Amino acid sequence: MKWFVVFLIFLSMKMLSLHSAPSTSTAHNSGTLLTGLDRVKDWENMAPGVWRARIGDSEKELSYTDLAARSPRMEALNRLPEVPFPFAKEPVSSLCNDGLVHVRIPCGADESIYGFGLQLDGINKSRRVLDLNVDHWARGGGRTHAPVPFYISSKGYGVFFNTARFIKVHAQVGNRKDSPNNPTPVDRNPPPQEPAKGPWMAQPPGDAVEVNLRGQGVEVVVFSGKNLLDIVSRYNLFCGGGAMPPLWGLGFWHRVPASFNAEQSTKEVEEFAAQDMPLDVLGLEPGWMTRSYPCTFEWQKHRFPDPAGFTKAMFERGVRLNLWENPYVSPEGKLHKSLEPLSGSHMVWLGIVPDLMLPEARQLLCKHHADEHVSIGVSGYKIDEVDGYDQWLWPEHAVFPSGTPAESMRQAYGLLWQKMLLEELFRESNTRTWSLVRSSNGAASGMPFTLYSDSYNHAEYITGLSAASLSGILWSPEVRGAGSAAEWLARIQTVCFSPLAMLNAWASATKPWEFPEVTDQVRAAIHLRMRLLPYLYAAFADYNQKGIPPIRAMILEEAAPTPVVQKADEELDDVNNPYADGGIRIIEQNDQFMFGPSILVAPYYGDKSQKREVRLPKGDWYDFYTGEFVGNGSSIEVATPERTPLFVKDGAVIPMLAKAINNTRNAYGHPLEVRHYGKSSGSFALYEDDGNSFNYENGEFGIRELSFVDGKGSEAIAKSGPRLFGDVSSWVQMGN
Amino acid sequence: MKWFVVFLIFLSMKMLSLHSAPSTSTAHNSGTLLTGLDRVKDWENMAPGVWRARIGDSEKELSYTDLAARSPRMEALNRLPEVPFPFAKEPVSSLCNDGLVHVRIPCGADESIYGFGLQLDGINKSRRVLDLNVDHWARGGGRTHAPVPFYISSKGYGVFFNTARFIKVHAQVGNRKDSPNNPTPVDRNPPPQEPAKGPWMAQPPGDAVEVNLRGQGVEVVVFSGKNLLDIVSRYNLFCGGGAMPPLWGLGFWHRVPASFNAEQSTKEVEEFAAQDMPLDVLGLEPGWMTRSYPCTFEWQKHRFPDPAGFTKAMFERGVRLNLWENPYVSPEGKLHKSLEPLSGSHMVWLGIVPDLMLPEARQLLCKHHADEHVSIGVSGYKIDEVDGYDQWLWPEHAVFPSGTPAESMRQAYGLLWQKMLLEELFRESNTRTWSLVRSSNGAASGMPFTLYSDSYNHAEYITGLSAASLSGILWSPEVRGAGSAAEWLARIQTVCFSPLAMLNAWASATKPWEFPEVTDQVRAAIHLRMRLLPYLYAAFADYNQKGIPPIRAMILEEAAPTPVVQKADEELDDVNNPYADGGIRIIEQNDQFMFGPSILVAPYYGDKSQKREVRLPKGDWYDFYTGEFVGNGSSIEVATPERTPLFVKDGAVIPMLAKAINNTRNAYGHPLEVRHYGKSSGSFALYEDDGNSFNYENGEFGIRELSFVDGKGSEAIAKSGPRLFGDVSSWVQMGN
Repeated sequence: MKWFVVFLIFLSMKMLSLHSAPSTSTAHNSGTLLTGLDRVKDWENMAPGVWRARIGDSEKELSYTDLAARSPRMEALNRLPEVPFPFAKEPVSSLCNDGLVHVRIPCGADESIYGFGLQLDGINKSRRVLDLNVDHWARGGGRTHAPVPFYISSKGYGVFFNTARFIKVHAQVGNRKDSPNNPTPVDRNPPPQEPAKGPWMAQPPGDAVEVNLRGQGVEVVVFSGKNLLDIVSRYNLFCGGGAMPPLWGLGFWHRVPASFNAEQSTKEVEEFAAQDMPLDVLGLEPGWMTRSYPCTFEWQKHRFPDPAGFTKAMFERGVRLNLWENPYVSPEGKLHKSLEPLSGSHMVWLGIVPDLMLPEARQLLCKHHADEHVSIGVSGYKIDEVDGYDQWLWPEHAVFPSGTPAESMRQAYGLLWQKMLLEELFRESNTRTWSLVRSSNGAASGMPFTLYSDSYNHAEYITGLSAASLSGILWSPEVRGAGSAAEWLARIQTVCFSPLAMLNAWASATKPWEFPEVTDQVRAAIHLRMRLLPYLYAAFADYNQKGIPPIRAMILEEAAPTPVVQKADEELDDVNNPYADGGIRIIEQNDQFMFGPSILVAPYYGDKSQKREVRLPKGDWYDFYTGEFVGNGSSIEVATPERTPLFVKDGAVIPMLAKAINNTRNAYGHPLEVRHYGKSSGSFALYEDDGNSFNYENGEFGIRELSFVDGKGSEAIAKSGPRLFGDVSSWVQMGN
Repeated sequence: MKWFVVFLIFLSMKMLSLHSAPSTSTAHNSGTLLTGLDRVKDWENMAPGVWRARIGDSEKELSYTDLAARSPRMEALNRLPEVPFPFAKEPVSSLCNDGLVHVRIPCGADESIYGFGLQLDGINKSRRVLDLNVDHWARGGGRTHAPVPFYISSKGYGVFFNTARFIKVHAQVGNRKDSPNNPTPVDRNPPPQEPAKGPWMAQPPGDAVEVNLRGQGVEVVVFSGKNLLDIVSRYNLFCGGGAMPPLWGLGFWHRVPASFNAEQSTKEVEEFAAQDMPLDVLGLEPGWMTRSYPCTFEWQKHRFPDPAGFTKAMFERGVRLNLWENPYVSPEGKLHKSLEPLSGSHMVWLGIVPDLMLPEARQLLCKHHADEHVSIGVSGYKIDEVDGYDQWLWPEHAVFPSGTPAESMRQAYGLLWQKMLLEELFRESNTRTWSLVRSSNGAASGMPFTLYSDSYNHAEYITGLSAASLSGILWSPEVRGAGSAAEWLARIQTVCFSPLAMLNAWASATKPWEFPEVTDQVRAAIHLRMRLLPYLYAAFADYNQKGIPPIRAMILEEAAPTPVVQKADEELDDVNNPYADGGIRIIEQNDQFMFGPSILVAPYYGDKSQKREVRLPKGDWYDFYTGEFVGNGSSIEVATPERTPLFVKDGAVIPMLAKAINNTRNAYGHPLEVRHYGKSSGSFALYEDDGNSFNYENGEFGIRELSFVDGKGSEAIAKSGPRLFGDVSSWVQMGN
């Protein structure tokens, strides 16, 4: 009963945008408060394992959940078990001073901290100082395309700072003089007579995650759960659940060079067919517009004389169009005049910056996008340049007519574009989109947009798949080029196990058959992705309904082995670095990840060794291709660069298309091969809907339960609804 | 009369710390104001070429001039000619919004902007975004040991933001949509049918220097003058004039390894004598203390059983001691208990951080330093770690008992230590110091402290000499080690033409004779510095009394040639960098500089080529060593790595010690050789005082005018006072 009341209050507050004091609160008042800090005590229990506190005038600030795709999935959250509040012993505290809001979250020196968004250098962010600013990826300082202010701790809780401000994080860095947990100082230069008391540390471990941000307040949401995956899932459910792609979004994507015209694009599509290469989405780059950098969003008729005819002809080949754009409006565009008064004080590349907090601005943009693109069949966008270096975007002192601080606009601009296109464009036409965006942030799990980057380090790109899974975002390790056939193949293999499998040839003009010596293996990798569509689509349904990330870091596996931790010296170039002995950073290998409920992916880097180590979690694991047992909690070496190393959990049931297809329209009604791995019984909930509309949100979906017991497969209808795939044509016990 | 009134008002405000509205103001009200901005109009004319405006409640913020070594040199400033206010046409404007203070200074796209402190990547900061935060040197982002918020423009003015806050600078970056000066956008992807209208620019030039900072306000001081040197000099005079070293500070310095004891240190000094190598100051590193990192400031008796005896014995050899320390107080130190309540909320390396804004804290520290060090003869300090990465120092949300914001403490902590040691320790004992510090900031010209860095790039170190000269700071390209004899020699040569000629062997244990094959040339370089003492000491007197930096960037020479400008791609590692054509940075060669009034220094880098180009300003230039004419406004190649390429202006008179000495005590009464270069008549004002006390501030100094007319030298007393050097023993017309 209590939770139902909380839920109703929550919903009514959301709907009415009221920000009254919470009428249901749980005070957690134990623990000693440090000098000068205020105890954060009004923790509102929003749902099982979810508590919220407001510090300062947080309701005056833009929150990420205000921009979420959907309101919290309260039904799903309320089905989850209650868990204890993680800060019952030591209090969370705060201080508003000198225009800064400071929050201090207790954190033991022995805890590992993970998350903070798309941090491509590794998911472990223990003992770091981070600037969580939307920016190009900045190699470890916190600045990145999606600096989501959400972290999880190995001790079993998560913390979300739900306010669109630049946030400075001191994660276990800093020692207050009144803390009871400070280590004892160690002299760096004891005389020989005195025995050393231990290694001197350049960074003595701190006992808190301390953050500060500018503004009037901050909303803090704390999550707990039975394990790390449960915590991340509750975060995603609180943010409205995960995005549900249209089926075609999971096919293969290709982006043509920036200056391609309709004829060249058509020829490229024909080449894909001639090469027996899958293709579902063709991406057009800046040249499709009359002006780009800044943009007009209008078709360049020199290159595309008949946009509607071109789009229709493509669609008849099964290929949807995705259009590149950046948000900055050219003075030569039709929209400029009406948007000019609705834009910020500063321009980007001499284009005005629409203030998307103004409904009028969004309406103008959406009407244009609907009339010129979506109405003729354009399926989505690649929203570029919403991250951007300081020297490209607007300064913090810029002014927007809505009164939204420029800093909040920097943090949320990618989110605002996503929300506008999702809610006011695609939902209006009841057509799902699957799109790309260069920046995102908190509470974004419901956004059907995948992040990408100009950075191009393959190890970082693989790490991104793990990092994204901890923060409710999606990431594509897009392929652009390679220095060798081995690297090319490895990159293609990696991207085929991502939310958006794309070759982005806008500048490189590469095609999947760029290295003929590996073209068959490239084709096989893409075909395998196509065959796995039923499996992957259901994994996304779990993201949507249960908050479970479809592609996940290994630490979210309950039985994941301890990560391999390496110590690395600080990056100081001093020949006589005084801190070489003290500046330790933790680097974890994030070079393998989970794909859907039961497949472990361990991509190759494409280096010369042509082999790699795979660390298997506890439990019996089987080779995906052969069904052979490979290990349990052990490390194995693989040396099969011709195909992605894939390993399957004991008991896993994996539905696949019976044959490879080159376009997702051929998945409709396609017979299924259902595989079973290992000895334990198992089942798979095959999710199906119409593959393209939002009707699933009204319950228009079906679930077939595919089970294997004693080596024998069977099917049952768990929920009747639309059918998408065909009947099961073969039940295969792998390894036999 | 008017200026006298302004001066009195200024002085009384300084003394009474009153911040009343200015009673004398000059309003500059012309020009068009941009939308939403406030006109900055109450420009108070402080002195000829100096105007001040207060934006917001700037008096509530800590200002750099509050921490200056001395009050403005009004007598000297008032002797300078009036010049027009540089922003009479286009207004300076401001906006206080969302907790930020924004100032917009008009700036044409054709102006070059120089300065912003110790920016080791070059002095030209046009078209950059900079974070002016005290930090380790961060390779171009603005963060550096001394991020002085002062810049000068090629159009002939300077701007100083006199508030201790982190400042974000957009120098000619950013285009307001209402600016009348915006360039026309250029499409990045025009179809072939359309001719390109010009190169697309990733960063269209802006028409202002826009800054923002947190806080309640900012004081802006504008300078103008007849040329760039005049502007910098007025800035230095406004900040109290330049620091005057004791004569011994200009001798040669050596720092011994961190763990050295008294015996080892004594042996090292004996070795210098045996090698005929100059030595005036010996630096002791952390091991002299009972505890370091954090510090006790107490002598480690295991290593130094008799500090007073050791110091005295050193002094008898002519060698003064300089002690390393960082400011963070160990709990094992005597000072800890009394300083604990006078320290900030956060520790550094588990040592408390004294709040130097509290007089009690300063008194405790100074009494200890006086009793334990200065009273026994310690000559100065090396104040380390007052810069520091975010993960080492205190966070912005730290709290100090004085109420000073943590951010202001980060910006000013190095300054606070300098001021405390200068005013409350050394001035108290009427003994000058010459010391080292790792951070500084605005209005620091009067501080007898030289900056140093953990970075060790020789090109950056040479650039630092130019950069420092634009911002009222001093810089030592200290030598620590080298990969080759050529590099070793080149580095020694460079440091000998700096404010503090030091070999810092704390970790490397190197000695000047590290590479025997160049030891004679190393000795010659150091001996030349010693012989140039009369010349360099007078150059510092000009810094002190006229604000003229003793070591200067070439752009401060009136007839400096146009700097060599190179274009460099943005540092993007993308294999298909979309901005490679647009992201242009300006790089200038800052590889030569002026040393004193008339010597141009062009150091070698010590690379394999063993030669370099020298760009001579207009005017006749002569080889320092031979007196031969070398060029006029031309570029020449030199290939004499055995000695530093030095070139002298036509007419220059250069007083030198007649012979090389190994200790500055031998400079007292030493006969002089006075050289003359070229054909024009010339003279040199030889400054002399007691070399060690502050009595010169009371006029106790003398000036001998050394002149050469028609090839004949003569001496006259321009101001009678103490004598330091001996009589002129030879007048030398060079080149004869």
